[in-house]
Amino acid sequence: MISGSKERQQEPPLAICLVSGGLDSCVTAAIAMQNCRPAFLHVNYGQRTEERELKAFEAIADYYGVRERLVADISYLKAIGGSALTDHDIPVPEGSLGKPGIPITYVPFRNSHILAIATSWGEVIGARYIYIGATELDNSGYPDCRKSYFAAYNRLIKEGTRPETKIEIVTPLIDSDKEMVVRRGVALKVPFHLTWSCYQNQDIACGKCESCLLRIKGFAAAGVTDPIPYEGQQ
Amino acid sequence: MISGSKERQQEPPLAICLVSGGLDSCVTAAIAMQNCRPAFLHVNYGQRTEERELKAFEAIADYYGVRERLVADISYLKAIGGSALTDHDIPVPEGSLGKPGIPITYVPFRNSHILAIATSWGEVIGARYIYIGATELDNSGYPDCRKSYFAAYNRLIKEGTRPETKIEIVTPLIDSDKEMVVRRGVALKVPFHLTWSCYQNQDIACGKCESCLLRIKGFAAAGVTDPIPYEGQQ
Repeated sequence: MISGSKERQQEPPLAICLVSGGLDSCVTAAIAMQNCRPAFLHVNYGQRTEERELKAFEAIADYYGVRERLVADISYLKAIGGSALTDHDIPVPEGSLGKPGIPITYVPFRNSHILAIATSWGEVIGARYIYIGATELDNSGYPDCRKSYFAAYNRLIKEGTRPETKIEIVTPLIDSDKEMVVRRGVALKVPFHLTWSCYQNQDIACGKCESCLLRIKGFAAAGVTDPIPYEGQQ
Repeated sequence: MISGSKERQQEPPLAICLVSGGLDSCVTAAIAMQNCRPAFLHVNYGQRTEERELKAFEAIADYYGVRERLVADISYLKAIGGSALTDHDIPVPEGSLGKPGIPITYVPFRNSHILAIATSWGEVIGARYIYIGATELDNSGYPDCRKSYFAAYNRLIKEGTRPETKIEIVTPLIDSDKEMVVRRGVALKVPFHLTWSCYQNQDIACGKCESCLLRIKGFAAAGVTDPIPYEGQQ
């Protein structure tokens, strides 16, 4: 066997990491980079904090020195509406953790758009995996964050791509709660200070929306200080 | 039973019709409108003939008096590339009908993006069906035009939407060849003159790309005159 082909064999597989700029996706990318070469994908979908999340994405990609990046715009989701995240006439609820049913922040079928972009890009650049930081536990209300959903998407990729394409969605945090995510992030030295979770604000996190509440609870449970400042904090 | 609720029960279901502006989608929309109220969806994906296809979409929607319309832009597919339709450095092949393998005009996983938009929109406006004019026979090379692909997508919709959402993809032309599509269109008085099929040109159809060749063959086999002029025609 010639040395060139041996080196080629040892090259780690390419993984598309969906990096929203939030905590879960940043930890997921760190997990992917343990064994894979990363390509970072960010999607703007007309959400309230679009600009701030993009800034977090670029900062995280710079931090890890990831050159392969794609930012895709699916702002037609804003025209479609139906969610407090994309329709500014629907207020983002405060303090609603643990309420039954699907939250009004659910963006209908959103992950299917993001995974379609990842799959198309992955098919062109030869990716083997798509890493997504979905958690079934914390987002039990979102139908497109469940294991059965990702299993169905993996079947769709098999059916809808070239026979030689082998792309698989990986969800390393699917069974984790926020405390476990924070602990995993600490172990991987994730740059928490660069991440953004707030659904409402773009300057200082509100500390009241469901995403802030989940984050605050997770850091507290893990006994770790959240480096992000919150509104009204000393 | 009160009269109002009786009328409501009799209201036909809402169907999202994917109208690219081509022959197949126009005939499919005509089929959908036999039993459903239509909502027309068009998607720009940075393809060569984007402007001409949008013009065809608007003309067909005007012809049928469809007010519920959505035009979505997924031009990130152009940034992703990998197809002769979106990457202008890859030439559109001429006279390639019947060649084995997946044509270079395949846009990786494209239908998954379009169906995701249809599903998100459908979930918000309460659609029951998504009509798409895919044909397995003529597009055997495109993996995302096969029955097994649409079956996988229907499972994905079930998994990824609210429990009360019941949206189903319908492919009335899946087993038809172009001759059958033309015959079906004649029976439904489809405005063939408003449709656009050419992959290459936006003014007069080239008559040489695989899409033109399929269309010309279909009209000839059905013994119907194609009202569209072609380059070099008398």
